[in-house]
Amino acid sequence: MIKGSCMIGQSGGPTAVINASLLGIIEEAKKKQVFDHIYGLLNGIDGIIKEKFVDFNDYDIQKLKLLKTTPAAALGSVRFKLPNDFNNTIYKTIEEVFVKYNVRCFYYIGGNDSMDTCHKLGEYFKKINFDCKVIGIPKTIDNDIVEIDHTPGYGSASKFIYTTISEIYEDTKVYEKGRVTIVEVMGRDSGWLTASTKLASLGGYGPDLIYLPEHTFILEEFLEDVDKIYKKKQRVMVALSEGIKDKSGNYVLQQRLYNQNDSFGHLQLGGVGMVLGEIISKKLNLPVRSVELNILQRCAAHLLSKTDIDEAYNCGKYGVRFYLDGKTDVMVSYKRKEETKYQLKYYTIPLEKVANLVKGVPSNWINERGNDLSNDYLEYALPLIQGDIKLPKVNGIIKYFDINEKIEQN
Amino acid sequence: MIKGSCMIGQSGGPTAVINASLLGIIEEAKKKQVFDHIYGLLNGIDGIIKEKFVDFNDYDIQKLKLLKTTPAAALGSVRFKLPNDFNNTIYKTIEEVFVKYNVRCFYYIGGNDSMDTCHKLGEYFKKINFDCKVIGIPKTIDNDIVEIDHTPGYGSASKFIYTTISEIYEDTKVYEKGRVTIVEVMGRDSGWLTASTKLASLGGYGPDLIYLPEHTFILEEFLEDVDKIYKKKQRVMVALSEGIKDKSGNYVLQQRLYNQNDSFGHLQLGGVGMVLGEIISKKLNLPVRSVELNILQRCAAHLLSKTDIDEAYNCGKYGVRFYLDGKTDVMVSYKRKEETKYQLKYYTIPLEKVANLVKGVPSNWINERGNDLSNDYLEYALPLIQGDIKLPKVNGIIKYFDINEKIEQN
Repeated sequence: MIKGSCMIGQSGGPTAVINASLLGIIEEAKKKQVFDHIYGLLNGIDGIIKEKFVDFNDYDIQKLKLLKTTPAAALGSVRFKLPNDFNNTIYKTIEEVFVKYNVRCFYYIGGNDSMDTCHKLGEYFKKINFDCKVIGIPKTIDNDIVEIDHTPGYGSASKFIYTTISEIYEDTKVYEKGRVTIVEVMGRDSGWLTASTKLASLGGYGPDLIYLPEHTFILEEFLEDVDKIYKKKQRVMVALSEGIKDKSGNYVLQQRLYNQNDSFGHLQLGGVGMVLGEIISKKLNLPVRSVELNILQRCAAHLLSKTDIDEAYNCGKYGVRFYLDGKTDVMVSYKRKEETKYQLKYYTIPLEKVANLVKGVPSNWINERGNDLSNDYLEYALPLIQGDIKLPKVNGIIKYFDINEKIEQN
Repeated sequence: MIKGSCMIGQSGGPTAVINASLLGIIEEAKKKQVFDHIYGLLNGIDGIIKEKFVDFNDYDIQKLKLLKTTPAAALGSVRFKLPNDFNNTIYKTIEEVFVKYNVRCFYYIGGNDSMDTCHKLGEYFKKINFDCKVIGIPKTIDNDIVEIDHTPGYGSASKFIYTTISEIYEDTKVYEKGRVTIVEVMGRDSGWLTASTKLASLGGYGPDLIYLPEHTFILEEFLEDVDKIYKKKQRVMVALSEGIKDKSGNYVLQQRLYNQNDSFGHLQLGGVGMVLGEIISKKLNLPVRSVELNILQRCAAHLLSKTDIDEAYNCGKYGVRFYLDGKTDVMVSYKRKEETKYQLKYYTIPLEKVANLVKGVPSNWINERGNDLSNDYLEYALPLIQGDIKLPKVNGIIKYFDINEKIEQN
């Protein structure tokens, strides 16, 4: 029986758990002896075209386990979208590389854009009758992939955000006369990450006002709300998404900083908290501090949710099982079982139902004034941040997986 | 025997461990039955003048234990410096309040400025022959207090900084063509916090270039170094202190943002990373990302160093013991014992030797070009970040101490 090989790529923005999914594929495939070779593509699709990849047979099994707690993307990532035209030479190139290395399954761990890449490859292989399965493994801190209860990566990002929001809240209380503290959270078109600041309220901490891109941001009402709360409490904490939009649907702040637009044409955002801070300072004459949680949101492995890590791992594991079931052109997904205790059921979703779509926070979870969330969100999110992880350390210093550390050949 | 009471205040910027020192005083004083009442001043000196304080007899002993892992300043803080003139009415006011509540010892947990306040009170009480001891308990993330090996608060801040620097480093590696990542670290006049980014190198991560305020920052050399490393590695990670200074001794960036100068006349810094990023973008035409670690550096209780917490607690505990020894006008201090294993010996230092002075990173720990640190720093800092703390949680949500939660009176 010819087992052939599989290729695994990572794509899009890094998360704290994308490597756990990679480990899930590797360990399950090795355990069930599914492939002769498990290749890890360096920089996603780019690794196919340039034939740049590693063979996980060359790695020590114990060291691979470090992947579970290594943030970012151990294989490297890429932002690259396949063209719509199947006659484009890139498809032929990919096919040739896959034939050369006898690739029977292509795994791509990524978000919306990556699922589009997966779907196109799946369609292409069907069209040319090439027997290579294509399986998408979801990941994104943004939680904006459709047809899945929540995305791997979201739980850990939420945990980082709600925890640091709680700490910043304690910090804002120390002086008798406080400030307006604005915390800017990632999230271009969906407010899931900003919503997670609400979790802090379960401890009695957190923002007085929360603004998501799913609800129109009205500056006048914002200033009114800030002013009112400051007068009452002598301090205000605001959490807002970098992607909040005005009545016309434009970003409140189309600030480009010095980064170019990314290669998918998404506008690089940032600084909306700082600019609203300036407006508050000028119009309300209140002391302001702006805090940007920045890229720590996507790489804070030190605050991993065990639930999230386990689910990310399982997505990889089930990716192997679904391959054995003959599935292709699908994304691994899960939903909550209808039981009191939080539990997931894993299944597959056709990629065409997923690619390029975006899931926002349900509008009925946001209050009418657009500055708070209902308890529905808390019920949804609380199970996702449960469980702590102890990071592997050497002499008290964190140790991550290193793709360059192979087994030494004699 | 009249035991009298003590008053404890917290002052200056919050840290993740200032409340552990508070708990150290409370628990040791209760254990040894030193005082009839242990009062906690709300907002430091301000709490004396306004007679705003709590009595720790009104709190549940178990709930008080939460102080050990509660960030910021549970009693609230203040930025207020006593005047030099002892004839100022404020001294008389303090004396009257202390007489009224039979205060035998005043504990002030704070940094350089707070030690000045302590020292002035100590001198004043000596001058008027008033039998109230004054004991300073050191704390500051800045590690810039003289006559102490390192300050409580520094270890946890270092741990947060080196950990997130390691994570950001992993994040910077994911794309084939990387960026220049500039991480701006707190530290106005001393580079201790920025130095702690060097700890990441022990794991194989961390900045290529490190700039401290103790060494003149030369823009041309900085650009040369960034350019050279980028050409070699296709990515550069820079850590720099917000307080780096040019040849004339001026801050590289005297940016005020929208905050006023603080009440001690210190300039509010911030944004130097962003402005240097713009210069790199324009002059070297490289993609740049600026990250400000911001106030998380001083309040990240989720990354507490157990060593730091224990030492902060001990400073409080020894504060009680030194009171019993009859000490006054002193700061609790410690030095390393001359043993192979890291261990501290606690003692006192006269406040006049401490007040208002600032300790920087030794210049012989910084390389000639001013862009790196020697192993001396690593040997010094590594013991300070050791040991992890498990945070108390309720339903998976962090629980801090709350000054408003007193024992219910029937």
